[in-house]
Amino acid sequence: MTWRVACIITVGSEITRGLIQDTNSNWLASRLNSLGVTVKRIISVPDDKSEIAWALKSCLEVSDIIVVTGGLGFTADDITLEAAAEALGVKLVFSSEALEMIKSRVRGEVTYQVKAAYIPEGSKPLYNRTGVSPGVHLVLSSKHIFFLPGVPSEMRTIFEDHVKPLLASTTYYSRTLLVRTRYSTETEVYRLLEPLKYKYTWVYFKTHAKTPVEVVVVIQANSLIELEERTRSLISDLEKTILIESLEYT
Amino acid sequence: MTWRVACIITVGSEITRGLIQDTNSNWLASRLNSLGVTVKRIISVPDDKSEIAWALKSCLEVSDIIVVTGGLGFTADDITLEAAAEALGVKLVFSSEALEMIKSRVRGEVTYQVKAAYIPEGSKPLYNRTGVSPGVHLVLSSKHIFFLPGVPSEMRTIFEDHVKPLLASTTYYSRTLLVRTRYSTETEVYRLLEPLKYKYTWVYFKTHAKTPVEVVVVIQANSLIELEERTRSLISDLEKTILIESLEYT
Repeated sequence: MTWRVACIITVGSEITRGLIQDTNSNWLASRLNSLGVTVKRIISVPDDKSEIAWALKSCLEVSDIIVVTGGLGFTADDITLEAAAEALGVKLVFSSEALEMIKSRVRGEVTYQVKAAYIPEGSKPLYNRTGVSPGVHLVLSSKHIFFLPGVPSEMRTIFEDHVKPLLASTTYYSRTLLVRTRYSTETEVYRLLEPLKYKYTWVYFKTHAKTPVEVVVVIQANSLIELEERTRSLISDLEKTILIESLEYT
Repeated sequence: MTWRVACIITVGSEITRGLIQDTNSNWLASRLNSLGVTVKRIISVPDDKSEIAWALKSCLEVSDIIVVTGGLGFTADDITLEAAAEALGVKLVFSSEALEMIKSRVRGEVTYQVKAAYIPEGSKPLYNRTGVSPGVHLVLSSKHIFFLPGVPSEMRTIFEDHVKPLLASTTYYSRTLLVRTRYSTETEVYRLLEPLKYKYTWVYFKTHAKTPVEVVVVIQANSLIELEERTRSLISDLEKTILIESLEYT
């Protein structure tokens, strides 16, 4: 079993300036986790070459999957691919495949949009069916780097169309349970659950300080059958360990 | 003029697992920017000692203000202060001042909540008027590190009560304008604004690909008077440069 680890990088000065809420990283974290990928770091940086480079390098040190969003557009501050190419020591080259994708998405003549056809050498463009800029997939020392547009709808469809199939073929299954307990303090529940944490290393428990206390339980497995077995076994142990008010699949 | 640079770190496996949307970093980024502080990086890490340590160290390298949220509670997975103390090479010590703050916020006897009274040596607890765990302010090699609870209401009140006054005394003023133009492409507006970017280095322009195109303009200054002057001068130049449909203060 090789556990897969990802980092998420969201690029855009509008994020670090607090002008917009970055929802891409939350969506990606949720999707990656549901595909059995552990997200180790989420980093947001401004449209700044050295910060983009730093984020990429620091993520390459600890993960084998990196998803970058933002900065793939046509204005001069869209510098993600340029910064990435420099940081990773590859050239930015013209891709006729990317240009074809762009042409199929633009009414009339392609002019300033040509910028999005320059992608890191050795990478592949990923068709964008909701916008113009293609996503980009780069494999480097067996690590997968995905560059997706910052516009949430475009980011999501490219992820579902291209990134998910690539990751799903080799990854894991997961399920989230919401357990409402009959306890009033988080600490009490936390202590009771402690032994289960050691028994089930493939389970993540998170208690929430509501009254009564709620526990979010995430179960991970290598197959759907294993996921069913693990869910059954865990629920049976949970029922012996804590007083459960209700249990929902979320 | 010494420009102040901040990093934001949000701690919590519920963030990297995509179980909750981290809204703290967006709120903090917006508040810090309005106080004239530039946010260079936003990093989210799980409840993991080595990741918290990595985030802190990487932020200390590039900024003089670090705001950390999350992991100040009473359960065993709340390890932010422990991880920070280890990473920064200081001890975690009992603070009677912090204990008094906790006592004033807990009905009945203080038991497991005592955990929140152990803070990095040399740091000061910050009173939490909406929750129990105090915030923590640590000055290290003239850099300011603030640890705030992850619960948004507690994080916000401690920021407003304690962090803002500390930062405001030495920082800047800012104002955001929303300019609706009469252009249909972002690139066109971007090109027209280019000369203004060089003229006004204290202004941030961000064009948005709406039809017609919108521009968010953030003006920074050292005083309220300077902010007024800069706003007047900029608006006058904007009116000569681009076709404005409407202009709002946001």
